Amino acid sequence: MTKKRLTILGSTGSIGTSTLDIVRQFPNHFDVCALSCHSRVQQLAEQIREFHPDIVCVGSEEQADWLQKQFAAKDLTIVYGDEGLIQLTAETKVDLVVAGIVGSAGLRSTYAAIERGYDIALANKETMVLSGELMVTKAQETGSTIFPVDSEHNAIFQSLVGHQQSDIEKIILTASGGPFRDTPLSQFHQITLQDALNHPNWNMGNKITIDSATMMNKGLEVIEARWLFDIPVSQIEVVIHRESIVHSLVEYTDGSFIAQLGLPDMRIPIAFCLAYPARLPLRSEKMKMAELGKLHFEPVVWEKFPCLEMAISAANLGGAAPAVLNGANEAVVAAYLEERIHFLEIAGILKKVLEQLCLSQKSQENHYPFLHHIQTIDDALKADNWGRLEAQSLIN
Amino acid sequence: MTKKRLTILGSTGSIGTSTLDIVRQFPNHFDVCALSCHSRVQQLAEQIREFHPDIVCVGSEEQADWLQKQFAAKDLTIVYGDEGLIQLTAETKVDLVVAGIVGSAGLRSTYAAIERGYDIALANKETMVLSGELMVTKAQETGSTIFPVDSEHNAIFQSLVGHQQSDIEKIILTASGGPFRDTPLSQFHQITLQDALNHPNWNMGNKITIDSATMMNKGLEVIEARWLFDIPVSQIEVVIHRESIVHSLVEYTDGSFIAQLGLPDMRIPIAFCLAYPARLPLRSEKMKMAELGKLHFEPVVWEKFPCLEMAISAANLGGAAPAVLNGANEAVVAAYLEERIHFLEIAGILKKVLEQLCLSQKSQENHYPFLHHIQTIDDALKADNWGRLEAQSLIN
Repeated sequence: MTKKRLTILGSTGSIGTSTLDIVRQFPNHFDVCALSCHSRVQQLAEQIREFHPDIVCVGSEEQADWLQKQFAAKDLTIVYGDEGLIQLTAETKVDLVVAGIVGSAGLRSTYAAIERGYDIALANKETMVLSGELMVTKAQETGSTIFPVDSEHNAIFQSLVGHQQSDIEKIILTASGGPFRDTPLSQFHQITLQDALNHPNWNMGNKITIDSATMMNKGLEVIEARWLFDIPVSQIEVVIHRESIVHSLVEYTDGSFIAQLGLPDMRIPIAFCLAYPARLPLRSEKMKMAELGKLHFEPVVWEKFPCLEMAISAANLGGAAPAVLNGANEAVVAAYLEERIHFLEIAGILKKVLEQLCLSQKSQENHYPFLHHIQTIDDALKADNWGRLEAQSLIN
Repeated sequence: MTKKRLTILGSTGSIGTSTLDIVRQFPNHFDVCALSCHSRVQQLAEQIREFHPDIVCVGSEEQADWLQKQFAAKDLTIVYGDEGLIQLTAETKVDLVVAGIVGSAGLRSTYAAIERGYDIALANKETMVLSGELMVTKAQETGSTIFPVDSEHNAIFQSLVGHQQSDIEKIILTASGGPFRDTPLSQFHQITLQDALNHPNWNMGNKITIDSATMMNKGLEVIEARWLFDIPVSQIEVVIHRESIVHSLVEYTDGSFIAQLGLPDMRIPIAFCLAYPARLPLRSEKMKMAELGKLHFEPVVWEKFPCLEMAISAANLGGAAPAVLNGANEAVVAAYLEERIHFLEIAGILKKVLEQLCLSQKSQENHYPFLHHIQTIDDALKADNWGRLEAQSLIN
């Protein structure tokens, strides 16, 4: 069996370590060629000893120097910084790049991999939100396949395998609904930061936990789905499913629904991306259908989650709007986490930022061409930053 | 677009009329070449006027004569009886044969179609229960694809599309659980015929309603699945799912489950078989995920459903056992419907018949070679009949 050659970007993060856990279970299937991390170099050093990559990238020159001393005698190339990351991604010939870097820092390296025609296991959410059209157009050009790692989009990918795009009626993203799915709107004014940070299903970082409470996370997933599956926003639906067992579904034109289900173990979607079109007999806890009990499916109460509606508006506006919304949302959530604004103010600020975007687009002066057309990754990052600054000035 | 040429066996039955309803919706997709019915010739005459087949088959010479008078001037071949049915099936060159004849009467025509290498939309349950190995072996030889129409097996087929057989961990058949899913075993002695005929989800024929109450129907489906999907019985699981929305699932080795869901509308699986690999935009009521509310999944309480266990034993025994069980079950259910035996006696009689089969197989004398090896459709029918007679003599 030929081993699949892998680059893992963000190898010390959650997606990176899960990926390496799978490689550890199936050493005959994969060859780890390149690893990158931002700051956890000691952990990276351990990974180098275990997986023997040819090249690694770290955040800074100092970290590279430190690492160089540890592996002086080894045949290991060490690069650093943004340039190093692009070099590592573009120049390491692999079968699959696992894009596990968090945040907008992941955009350039993902794009570099797509430009080279490498297949991508995409865990970076910002890639599709900020620059979905760019990425997808480039991937079509180079023949790169983008496998989504995120459990919802991975479920849709799995539910589409072997089926025809033209037969899709709808894509249905399931959402846990976050901590306020059962809170009546009339009590939303009493929501405290502590309430919002108390997610019923997951223990995640603060930013994503707040995005889950506002359902902005699901809104961003709608934007991602729009590009990943080349489908109009009007054909994407969100359904509340509190158990997070049905990871998402595809409805076909004949009335059939295909769904992917499973335990919330990120190794399952990662393994799917790594092994496609085969599957790996993962050693992990197996779900037992007969022990599931009840699964609930309910409509979204839209009045409670204006952020979700906002994201869908941004997806419909297209162009720079999703990137602007993403930057603005980061600023607003940061302010909320610092208790500078109330939960109920989040959506209002985002709405104003989107209104200002529309105004700027309509004004005769064209100070910010990136607000009109996103033609480069740089444009996408600028639009994201514009949204952040607009939101910050509104907060202040 | 080239029209798909169809033969519809049992065209006046439930599967046949649903198939024609789909053809009516998509006249540019299909060409009805051959129709058969057993006794409803007036309905067949209407179908002939609407769909203009080249050949039809009816049950008797008298019916054929009557029909000949109605269509004297038309270019229509009319045949009758078992021989006519085989002739119609084998000699009409089509892309797909819809096998919608109910009961063991459907075996020979299905086999004739498979022998000719035609693809089959298989709605006849007895085909796989009585002669699964024969059918599947012949289909492999001739290149005939067997598409299951039954909603559970169709769901599994849909959940396998684009995936690899070797990656299957388990096939999970969902079962409504019938009228006694919530009845404690301690009350089973009080079950009346009326209770058993009162199915919570469906309004079906009496025989199948009783099979649903004993869960024998699910046992027979396990046998069918074993052959349809070429999978050991040990990898087939039954789960109680009272809503009958998730029609069945496939568990893969990586911990992913793929499921097919939908409203209980037989046109959905039939349309899938007709249009595969495409799908048809069926005009029918669409399921709304957000309005589903709760879906339940529970284990089977095996003590309550010994018939299910019996069918799994028969599947494991292989050879003639499933056919014998099927024949015996028909006799026992008939006796139960005549109130000659109690609900609790059904499984006991079936168990005795299976024990007698094992005894017969072990005896030195070989009066019934078909109990040892099923080599022909005739053997399968003989085994089925042997089971029926054994059960009848036990009942008497």
